[in-house]
Amino acid sequence: MSKLLIVGTVAFDAIETPFGKTDKILGGAGTYIALAAEKFGVDSAIVSVVGDDFPQDYMQLLKDRNVNLEGLEVVKGGKTFFWSGRYHNDMNTRDTLDTQLNVLADFQPKVPENYKDAEVVMLGNLHPLVQLSVLEQVKNPKLVALDTMNFWMDNALEDLLKVIAKVDVLTINDEEARQLSGEYSLVKAARKIEKMGPKFVVIKKGEHGALLFHDNQMFFAPALPLEEVFDPTGAGDTFAGGFAGYLAKTNNTSFKNMKNAIIYGSNLASFCVEKFGTERMLNLSDEEIDERLKVFKSLTQFKIDLN
Amino acid sequence: MSKLLIVGTVAFDAIETPFGKTDKILGGAGTYIALAAEKFGVDSAIVSVVGDDFPQDYMQLLKDRNVNLEGLEVVKGGKTFFWSGRYHNDMNTRDTLDTQLNVLADFQPKVPENYKDAEVVMLGNLHPLVQLSVLEQVKNPKLVALDTMNFWMDNALEDLLKVIAKVDVLTINDEEARQLSGEYSLVKAARKIEKMGPKFVVIKKGEHGALLFHDNQMFFAPALPLEEVFDPTGAGDTFAGGFAGYLAKTNNTSFKNMKNAIIYGSNLASFCVEKFGTERMLNLSDEEIDERLKVFKSLTQFKIDLN
Repeated sequence: MSKLLIVGTVAFDAIETPFGKTDKILGGAGTYIALAAEKFGVDSAIVSVVGDDFPQDYMQLLKDRNVNLEGLEVVKGGKTFFWSGRYHNDMNTRDTLDTQLNVLADFQPKVPENYKDAEVVMLGNLHPLVQLSVLEQVKNPKLVALDTMNFWMDNALEDLLKVIAKVDVLTINDEEARQLSGEYSLVKAARKIEKMGPKFVVIKKGEHGALLFHDNQMFFAPALPLEEVFDPTGAGDTFAGGFAGYLAKTNNTSFKNMKNAIIYGSNLASFCVEKFGTERMLNLSDEEIDERLKVFKSLTQFKIDLN
Repeated sequence: MSKLLIVGTVAFDAIETPFGKTDKILGGAGTYIALAAEKFGVDSAIVSVVGDDFPQDYMQLLKDRNVNLEGLEVVKGGKTFFWSGRYHNDMNTRDTLDTQLNVLADFQPKVPENYKDAEVVMLGNLHPLVQLSVLEQVKNPKLVALDTMNFWMDNALEDLLKVIAKVDVLTINDEEARQLSGEYSLVKAARKIEKMGPKFVVIKKGEHGALLFHDNQMFFAPALPLEEVFDPTGAGDTFAGGFAGYLAKTNNTSFKNMKNAIIYGSNLASFCVEKFGTERMLNLSDEEIDERLKVFKSLTQFKIDLN
């Protein structure tokens, strides 16, 4: 069992989908990653920042799930990062209605003393300079995974490339992989990205699943076909949290074990989208996760004997 | 080993992709289905029609691959069906530049006497009335699979629904499944389509793979991620031909065997797109197919033991 250090936003989200809308609720990449990783019983800590408008209840909810919050700075008089978005009918596209960086604008991350030797570091979506600063504070982690998005490619590419050069795993969506590499084929894109630094590249295709690349090896985990996607918010972060949490639990970074990690990431993401925000992740039993793993097996496993 | 009866166009195609363009070359759903099914060594026959402009070389090429052409009518003075299309850079969308029905306009299919007892019937894309007429001529096939497209939903829905009610398997792409069912979720779409008749529904998602539905069971076969898609023409028909060919060879219509059939369909389709038109399918060895099956296995198979 390894320690997992998580970097990412802790935020308020306001979400509209064809099924309804929410007021400001708990959200943020760091939150979703931590809630997914918690399912593996690992010791984890979030490095992030909130304002003093952030409710104690939300803090407690994370602490109750064994998430260390020593690295969660609370800025007095500051306001917590806020994102608001509306999903279209197909649930694959969304409009951002509002983004208020607030306390994130001047965030200087501080890794808790007890997590500087974390074996696994999951750098969730945040400014590349924040991610770099965290990497400067930790001591020889066994595995560093990075999740990022097109916003940083457009606005901080140079810094982003510096982070990418330092990580072991990059998780990124298909359009972002194409943008970063300049290649349309995801196979070619992954090969180019491996040359930028990461030994493993995970390309997330949303409802179409996720691909894992390493040298000349490839693995594919489908997304679970669902009757209803209620709210896709946090699915990608939940995938990343499941991936990192499983690797921290098993303490094994072989390609074979990475396959299992992306299956677990897909498994947890399939729950995340079933309810608004973090609701489903907060009420999810180990038995449900195991049951769904059986569904993933029957969805993908076949037996053909070659001559 | 069962006999396989194939219905579908035998045609001339002219194709433009970002990699180049062809003159009129051999094409058509029936052709691609037959060339894929041939890999399984089954006895197959095509029911279709061409004009007397159709080269003897193309006929011979099919005959050399054990495809019975007694049901391929040659209309004297008639011209063969012609389709011309241009693929966009993403290879997922295309414009039809020209469609000339020619001899297809008045086609009355005639099933060869020796194939009226075919155990497996693959109704490739053609007018639903042609497909219905073939079903009236055959005697108790063990399995009837139907491939169709949105064109018939738009122009001959009533006839199409009559065919759908009579088949065991419907293969259809994702957008068409949504159009036919009025459901966005593919899980819901498949359930609705099962109520229209077919016990098995295969939803083709192109580069995103294919889903098999039956009662409450689901199986997913990914498309092989490729460095380069050279020409997608015929990939869906090749998938259908691989599917039907494998089922005819194994003579087993269990869900478990259908899983293998869609893996073989995906396997063959992954070759089809590597060259223009039928070129790759005409030069494909059993060893290459077996090698690629290993790639499909390593792409999808994982081992997680539950507690």
